[in-house]
Amino acid sequence: MKFSYVSYLKCPKCSERYESNQKQQLCKCGSPLLVKYDLEALKEKFRREELKNREPNLWRYHELLPVQNEENIVTMGEGMTPLLPMNRIGKDMLIPNLLMKDEGIIPTGTFKARGAAVGVSKAKELGIKEIAMPTNGNAGAAWSLYAARAEMKATIVMPTDAPKITRNECAVSGANLSLVEGVISDAGKIVQQAVNEHGLFDASTLKEPYRIEGKKTMGLEIAEQLGWKMPDVILYPTGGGVGLIGIYKALTELVSLGWVEGNLPRLVAVQSVGCAPIVKAWREKRGDSDFWEGSSTIAFGINVPKALGDFLVLDAIYKTNGCAVAVEDITTLEEQQRIASLEGTFICPEGAAAFVAARRLRKNGWIKEKETVVVLNTGAGIKYPDTVKVDVPILTDA
Amino acid sequence: MKFSYVSYLKCPKCSERYESNQKQQLCKCGSPLLVKYDLEALKEKFRREELKNREPNLWRYHELLPVQNEENIVTMGEGMTPLLPMNRIGKDMLIPNLLMKDEGIIPTGTFKARGAAVGVSKAKELGIKEIAMPTNGNAGAAWSLYAARAEMKATIVMPTDAPKITRNECAVSGANLSLVEGVISDAGKIVQQAVNEHGLFDASTLKEPYRIEGKKTMGLEIAEQLGWKMPDVILYPTGGGVGLIGIYKALTELVSLGWVEGNLPRLVAVQSVGCAPIVKAWREKRGDSDFWEGSSTIAFGINVPKALGDFLVLDAIYKTNGCAVAVEDITTLEEQQRIASLEGTFICPEGAAAFVAARRLRKNGWIKEKETVVVLNTGAGIKYPDTVKVDVPILTDA
Repeated sequence: MKFSYVSYLKCPKCSERYESNQKQQLCKCGSPLLVKYDLEALKEKFRREELKNREPNLWRYHELLPVQNEENIVTMGEGMTPLLPMNRIGKDMLIPNLLMKDEGIIPTGTFKARGAAVGVSKAKELGIKEIAMPTNGNAGAAWSLYAARAEMKATIVMPTDAPKITRNECAVSGANLSLVEGVISDAGKIVQQAVNEHGLFDASTLKEPYRIEGKKTMGLEIAEQLGWKMPDVILYPTGGGVGLIGIYKALTELVSLGWVEGNLPRLVAVQSVGCAPIVKAWREKRGDSDFWEGSSTIAFGINVPKALGDFLVLDAIYKTNGCAVAVEDITTLEEQQRIASLEGTFICPEGAAAFVAARRLRKNGWIKEKETVVVLNTGAGIKYPDTVKVDVPILTDA
Repeated sequence: MKFSYVSYLKCPKCSERYESNQKQQLCKCGSPLLVKYDLEALKEKFRREELKNREPNLWRYHELLPVQNEENIVTMGEGMTPLLPMNRIGKDMLIPNLLMKDEGIIPTGTFKARGAAVGVSKAKELGIKEIAMPTNGNAGAAWSLYAARAEMKATIVMPTDAPKITRNECAVSGANLSLVEGVISDAGKIVQQAVNEHGLFDASTLKEPYRIEGKKTMGLEIAEQLGWKMPDVILYPTGGGVGLIGIYKALTELVSLGWVEGNLPRLVAVQSVGCAPIVKAWREKRGDSDFWEGSSTIAFGINVPKALGDFLVLDAIYKTNGCAVAVEDITTLEEQQRIASLEGTFICPEGAAAFVAARRLRKNGWIKEKETVVVLNTGAGIKYPDTVKVDVPILTDA
């Protein structure tokens, strides 16, 4: 048995192939690259039941991940996050089979840990010593910390408005952190310059091929946790969209392996009305999106005016008969509060936005009552203290 | 097979017995009560190998937990936190077999979730509708959120200096939160008054018997994760000390069941020099501790001037040939930074204090080079942003 069944990289736009055992960034044509596996061989040699005895982290799926030598794995125990029944909020929105994949229960407190764990591990395998990336905060924090564990240097640039705690995470890891006035695309320009000048490895969203593979494990876990049955709908708060692309990739790989049957779940990209390029493109039935000028939302992780992988996100939506929904910040904050008081889960605003979308889609009949619906909560609410108002009395005497 | 092998409650001081299917607080003699199980029957009917196919959360040990009806379980997927090799910091302190049990990777971001999950579940089973408790922050946050999930009201009182984010967690859950100038014992007086006046159930540390059972699962998990072998030493940051009492209880139960063999690990209580009542008592070879006047430490979770269970903590230390160590705040913060930059794990100051203690005990020879050492990190560093200095440039132009 091979540890990984990775076989090569392929451009989804021009079909050019690349070696997976060499450093790669974008395709010559400018598109992100996708990782291909020898699924035929794996199907023959491995049965999904063998997973049962493995550790509860994302490396249990190592055959479907790109790291070829186990020694290169850089892990903090990430993955196999809870898939929680959300009975009370489900009842409230008339979706009795509502589940939440809680990505707050993971190192660094957000799903970004998955991309960082697999991305940094593969970078280590390829001999990379230094990475650079722009971030809305959480990805930079995760990559900084995993890079530290891998003895790798990290250069991170984030907007001044990014969640404050992510600065602390970068700082404590020893990363080379800078802030910039503006949004993630402004940070991206600075990183691009540093990459060009100093020859750093560019770990920007989708500019290296392995972050998707980490995010993909959310899809693998959902399938395994549901007993290898597909849910009907998965809602995902969409900034760069890598999670949605990854989940779609995971589920199609599982179909090829014969591990799951039936239709793929309808994938829903959830954005904020203050930054909704994917929603706009979907409404216009287009294959890619325009840069969203003057973007703004409290759900900072989905403040991405133009995603490099927009065409992959839209393709996944179209192929699964999914849709895209934009939500107002104020409704998101109300939902976040309602979820905490009914379910005890303090989730991030991005996750709360996806719950609002579920509520709307149920109300307009797009989601049917009997359907099994999975909402991705992409991070812990504790990373966003400013989303909750605290007004408490101070007692001076017992 | 019964779901739980709980049999009764017993006072460790006067040996009085109590029913476990009725509401109980302290023993008439003032001591906390401990939960007893029918370990003989369980030993006969259950083999530890059967655990393998269970979900990776603390309810996998339900036979050794007090909840009798599975329907009463209130869970957010807590438990089976990573037991991480800490190779680089281990090398730095000459403990090659250094491991960290990372309790940051759990709902609410601290190990308090374990006590809350089991405590709230059992309270639900007993028909309790409203709880009250003083807290240093994290326990109150956890109990508030689990109470919300259980449709239970929570009244929480915490010091104004407690970590700010825990206020948000209580507020978002809908708990009745108050702040008080002072330390946890001052908050305790206010709660006592509310309990007396309004007949609330008192969920203060060790004033109800089930929080220990939740914390106990850290010990069960460490044993299972090490392949049912005992480590040589476990270091635990000690405030109320429930985790240490729980781990000791867990390991003695496992010995009775025949699931583990050999000597119990030497248990080390780690405190801050600014609040070290257990360390003082241990140095004086006493069985209980004195109230520590004017306590103060940045490791807020261990700012407990007098623990109700001090005699149980000291007993566990004496019985296992353990010890107690006090650490300076400044050294703790340096260690926290060093661990993040070497291992990528951003841990809480309480956890960092335990690493400092490990380093000292290795240096003075109390820990031997070949020994397997487990340090409990009791929470995520992201809940303590003020422990990290951030000094970053703001770039204005690409």
